[in-house]
Amino acid sequence: MENISIRTDLAVEAREMVQEETKKEVPGVAVNVEQQGDIKITRVKIEKEVGQKIMGKPIGNYITLEIPQIREKGEKFKEDLAQELAKELNTMVHKKVNKDATTLVVGLGNWNITPDSLGPKVISKLMVTRHLLENIPDMVDQELTPVCAISPGVLGITGIETSEIVKGIVEKIKPNLVIAIDALASRRAERVNTTIQMTDSGINPGSGVGNKRKALNKDSLGIPVIAIGIPTVVDATTLANDTIDLMLDAMIKEATQGKEFYNMLKEINREEKHMLIRQILHPYVGDLMVTPKEVDLIIDDISLVVANGINIALHPGIGLEDVNRYIN
Amino acid sequence: MENISIRTDLAVEAREMVQEETKKEVPGVAVNVEQQGDIKITRVKIEKEVGQKIMGKPIGNYITLEIPQIREKGEKFKEDLAQELAKELNTMVHKKVNKDATTLVVGLGNWNITPDSLGPKVISKLMVTRHLLENIPDMVDQELTPVCAISPGVLGITGIETSEIVKGIVEKIKPNLVIAIDALASRRAERVNTTIQMTDSGINPGSGVGNKRKALNKDSLGIPVIAIGIPTVVDATTLANDTIDLMLDAMIKEATQGKEFYNMLKEINREEKHMLIRQILHPYVGDLMVTPKEVDLIIDDISLVVANGINIALHPGIGLEDVNRYIN
Amino acid sequence: MENISIRTDLAVEAREMVQEETKKEVPGVAVNVEQQGDIKITRVKIEKEVGQKIMGKPIGNYITLEIPQIREKGEKFKEDLAQELAKELNTMVHKKVNKDATTLVVGLGNWNITPDSLGPKVISKLMVTRHLLENIPDMVDQELTPVCAISPGVLGITGIETSEIVKGIVEKIKPNLVIAIDALASRRAERVNTTIQMTDSGINPGSGVGNKRKALNKDSLGIPVIAIGIPTVVDATTLANDTIDLMLDAMIKEATQGKEFYNMLKEINREEKHMLIRQILHPYVGDLMVTPKEVDLIIDDISLVVANGINIALHPGIGLEDVNRYIN
Amino acid sequence: MENISIRTDLAVEAREMVQEETKKEVPGVAVNVEQQGDIKITRVKIEKEVGQKIMGKPIGNYITLEIPQIREKGEKFKEDLAQELAKELNTMVHKKVNKDATTLVVGLGNWNITPDSLGPKVISKLMVTRHLLENIPDMVDQELTPVCAISPGVLGITGIETSEIVKGIVEKIKPNLVIAIDALASRRAERVNTTIQMTDSGINPGSGVGNKRKALNKDSLGIPVIAIGIPTVVDATTLANDTIDLMLDAMIKEATQGKEFYNMLKEINREEKHMLIRQILHPYVGDLMVTPKEVDLIIDDISLVVANGINIALHPGIGLEDVNRYIN
Repeated sequence: MENISIRTDLAVEAREMVQEETKKEVPGVAVNVEQQGDIKITRVKIEKEVGQKIMGKPIGNYITLEIPQIREKGEKFKEDLAQELAKELNTMVHKKVNKDATTLVVGLGNWNITPDSLGPKVISKLMVTRHLLENIPDMVDQELTPVCAISPGVLGITGIETSEIVKGIVEKIKPNLVIAIDALASRRAERVNTTIQMTDSGINPGSGVGNKRKALNKDSLGIPVIAIGIPTVVDATTLANDTIDLMLDAMIKEATQGKEFYNMLKEINREEKHMLIRQILHPYVGDLMVTPKEVDLIIDDISLVVANGINIALHPGIGLEDVNRYIN
Repeated sequence: MENISIRTDLAVEAREMVQEETKKEVPGVAVNVEQQGDIKITRVKIEKEVGQKIMGKPIGNYITLEIPQIREKGEKFKEDLAQELAKELNTMVHKKVNKDATTLVVGLGNWNITPDSLGPKVISKLMVTRHLLENIPDMVDQELTPVCAISPGVLGITGIETSEIVKGIVEKIKPNLVIAIDALASRRAERVNTTIQMTDSGINPGSGVGNKRKALNKDSLGIPVIAIGIPTVVDATTLANDTIDLMLDAMIKEATQGKEFYNMLKEINREEKHMLIRQILHPYVGDLMVTPKEVDLIIDDISLVVANGINIALHPGIGLEDVNRYIN
Repeated sequence: MENISIRTDLAVEAREMVQEETKKEVPGVAVNVEQQGDIKITRVKIEKEVGQKIMGKPIGNYITLEIPQIREKGEKFKEDLAQELAKELNTMVHKKVNKDATTLVVGLGNWNITPDSLGPKVISKLMVTRHLLENIPDMVDQELTPVCAISPGVLGITGIETSEIVKGIVEKIKPNLVIAIDALASRRAERVNTTIQMTDSGINPGSGVGNKRKALNKDSLGIPVIAIGIPTVVDATTLANDTIDLMLDAMIKEATQGKEFYNMLKEINREEKHMLIRQILHPYVGDLMVTPKEVDLIIDDISLVVANGINIALHPGIGLEDVNRYIN
Repeated sequence: MENISIRTDLAVEAREMVQEETKKEVPGVAVNVEQQGDIKITRVKIEKEVGQKIMGKPIGNYITLEIPQIREKGEKFKEDLAQELAKELNTMVHKKVNKDATTLVVGLGNWNITPDSLGPKVISKLMVTRHLLENIPDMVDQELTPVCAISPGVLGITGIETSEIVKGIVEKIKPNLVIAIDALASRRAERVNTTIQMTDSGINPGSGVGNKRKALNKDSLGIPVIAIGIPTVVDATTLANDTIDLMLDAMIKEATQGKEFYNMLKEINREEKHMLIRQILHPYVGDLMVTPKEVDLIIDDISLVVANGINIALHPGIGLEDVNRYIN
């Protein structure tokens, strides 16, 4: 994969990139696409070593909900989306653990950097019930399952690898399942805040907006880990790179007749492209990000969708109108 | 102790209460008072079982800095106060651990409730260095010592006892010392945000503005725990109770001659007082707090003093003007 | 009125205080009480000079919605409450202006002091439409009426009397109606965040949590002013005062037989009470406030109720589910 | 000017763009460059109609402070920078008004969108004195001059043109000078948060990160208006455009020998470039922005520099260490 270094956290994007190059489906990968009203659901299953290697992502299930028009939708739609997310998540959860499992929800990311604050924002809107079921079981609904939650911060804030914090807590309180929420980077502006990915392969090195090294998955924690991610930024390097690619494509199309020109264009190789990008973004290379202007408001909105998706999936007996009684 | 149920987290207040009752120094307790410019430093040492029992606080050192006029002071004074705090803290720390010890600073409290957000606010202004010393030792000052930090939230937010989270992390990363920051409740409005207490006895049940049960001390964590606390609220029950006491005192003074009256006043006992207070504060008993109006701004200010006190104490080689390069 | 200096912004409290003293209905004041499910609606009409003088409030209509159990209610109830508020507000508005009037909503108070931030919080959740109707009339619903909004800050933040800012804007953009939102002080803890008052007499000197001198009413602005207020604090002076009064009442009850004692108690006059209160609250007199611990969360909740009440009242053709499309 | 539609709020950038094209100094424009330690000061004076037309900016003085390494500097440097800013600002101010003039500082921008919140952030750190000098003149320093301040919000929040709000207030309180603070857009990533521009030409249509139409200048307000701006974003369209330009430049350099190729490249005209950019950024065209990841923290820092620059410039008798006593 020539493009392997171009950053994507989304299985659907990795697949697209492979397909653009090879013009065929990725071997070892099964894909199923479904349209549910305004929501496009893509289920990518990386089944074999070969798929894992080509996709640059571990074996596992990757379910993506895409809603390009999410910003124009009203409140009602956000409830429908939370319900749809809950349905997919509920299925994924109950393949891994039984009904009364204790879940630890981990909100990854830096609350001081808006597009990286998705995880902590979701935690703040979550129904946390473990302490109620332990301390006052008679005063809470019977249908509740034990949920606890933590926003561990990032290395620069704590001085501790996030994975160490999570492992320490998991070993102490012994939940049956971890659900980790993370802000992702996308290659495409149009996916920012319009795509939700969930996967049972957990969080793996190199993912995410910030620097959240070290895996959170079944290997590292000893229990199943489901990761839910939403692209909240395009990084500026990707944007500049894609600009150049699109432009070269456009020029190559017009240049079919002229041989000299065509060869010239072909020679614009990766090294030159990266040198150009470095010039453009200098001195901020790697630190610039591209976000919608109203990112603060969007993160508020989408974090509520994710929180409610989890709330409904983990407490199927509780209606959305009762959720608020359990928040805070 | 008749007043034992009246809530105070401050050793100086516990001592005052005992003295008011008994009119003499508390047995098993050594006290030393020093005035440093505008800062009054009181060092209370609870030395024996008898002192522990009477004071309602574990054996240990309790150092209190009182600065009644802190709000009228300029920026310069806050630096002096941070320096003074650092001096006391440095001494306390280095009786417990050696110079290159790793410290975990724990910011207790609920970031959503302003007067309880002192701990998390201090964490946000702390020099966190452990990851730098591990990952890029050549790029940081030689004088730095490893510091890491966590704001674990509160039971209602996480569903996990704070002490469990801290224990999990301590067992995983094995620091040599914990410094825990907490917002306290005072009996007296004049102490709110003007008093800093530090103690090597750690955090013990029942302390704090919010509900942070379970101890954080050498017994529970296996390493020394220094607690730094600042009263940020008076609870409304205490305020109402003190109002009644002051009033009865005033009336008793005027009533010396009249026997019937004097006896009447003596009969106003604790039960009646509490019944009155319940009437006044109903239906909010126990949940109301009394704070200065500008509590948000005060917490911002005082948390910087505490953070810088810790920064200087733990990294004696680093000047205050360099601190900011290591924050965030 | 002996108690006139005791601070209350609520007509229902002023009336109670008069009634306690005089044991009869206030002359020049008409009162109507209605129970709507869990909402108690009290309509106080100060009709005459005599009523105005006794009540310490200008002639006008004062409608109060009381919901003591608001904290235990779910989301659905908050919608019902917004609907009920909208009904009362709509009636009050349309006695003053016609259907296509332009409304300026003013969010009074200091956004840095949580219990005083109600006004600015309401503004942040309001449907603002004036610019859409002016600039892109074809792209918005026909049923919308022009609404604009401002949070002018407080004197300590701007250096300008709030009333001057509002007058300047009113003279420039010439709305037909002002709705002013303000956080109030109550005498009773139980009314904090459970009572909504609206009045067509506007905002008058001395009201409010912060210092928002100078009136905002028809006299000062030249257009009708409806004020919506919610008590978000009890001030500490009031709490201490009420504690003393309750205690004296309790003692007087028990003291009927003893003449000397009774006379003694009667002699505890206002001066002595205030001296006591000053002692208790010193050095924070006048600056301490009593709030529920979770005041940040409560203000968030209740400001949404008020915002939606206004949204529905001013745009009767728009359903609550469409409101969000117009926010921000 | 072919590039006239490419957005820049900075006079130094406009000048660069003209110079790149024409290879000479802009007629009707005088330029003076000075290096003060780490601060590069460029004074651009647009003197004549011809300069105004070519630069796309009104006649006036434009002073730019550039500090490329600002992020690596410590706290001390930020004080030096505030002092330098104050010196330039003081000179500009006192060419316009006399020493005891009343200044209204206007913080433009949307506080909900971090990179656009510079103006309101500066206001929150400003010494506001007008009300003190009016109400308690004996209690404040003699050297203070009357300063008031407002953050009027943006059209989408208020439904009112910002210029109307400011005009209404100016007409009501009659200050002698307006200083307006605004977040700008730059063409170059390296200028983001490293460049401060101040100008006596005020705020003119089309400037700014958000949509703040209508001028704030001497013509519209009747009093002098000084604008202080800092680029906090590069817009994504500019970034994509610059990427393409740089790439074409690189290709043209290598293509000097090949005639066909050279002509081809020359034919890549503006229409095609814009079509490409639209494809890349779709569906977010015009709404995406490029910012450093830690934009929240940077805005906090730089707003303090600007606030202190203004504080020192307007109150030359007050030291920086006294400033904090007057804030909030």
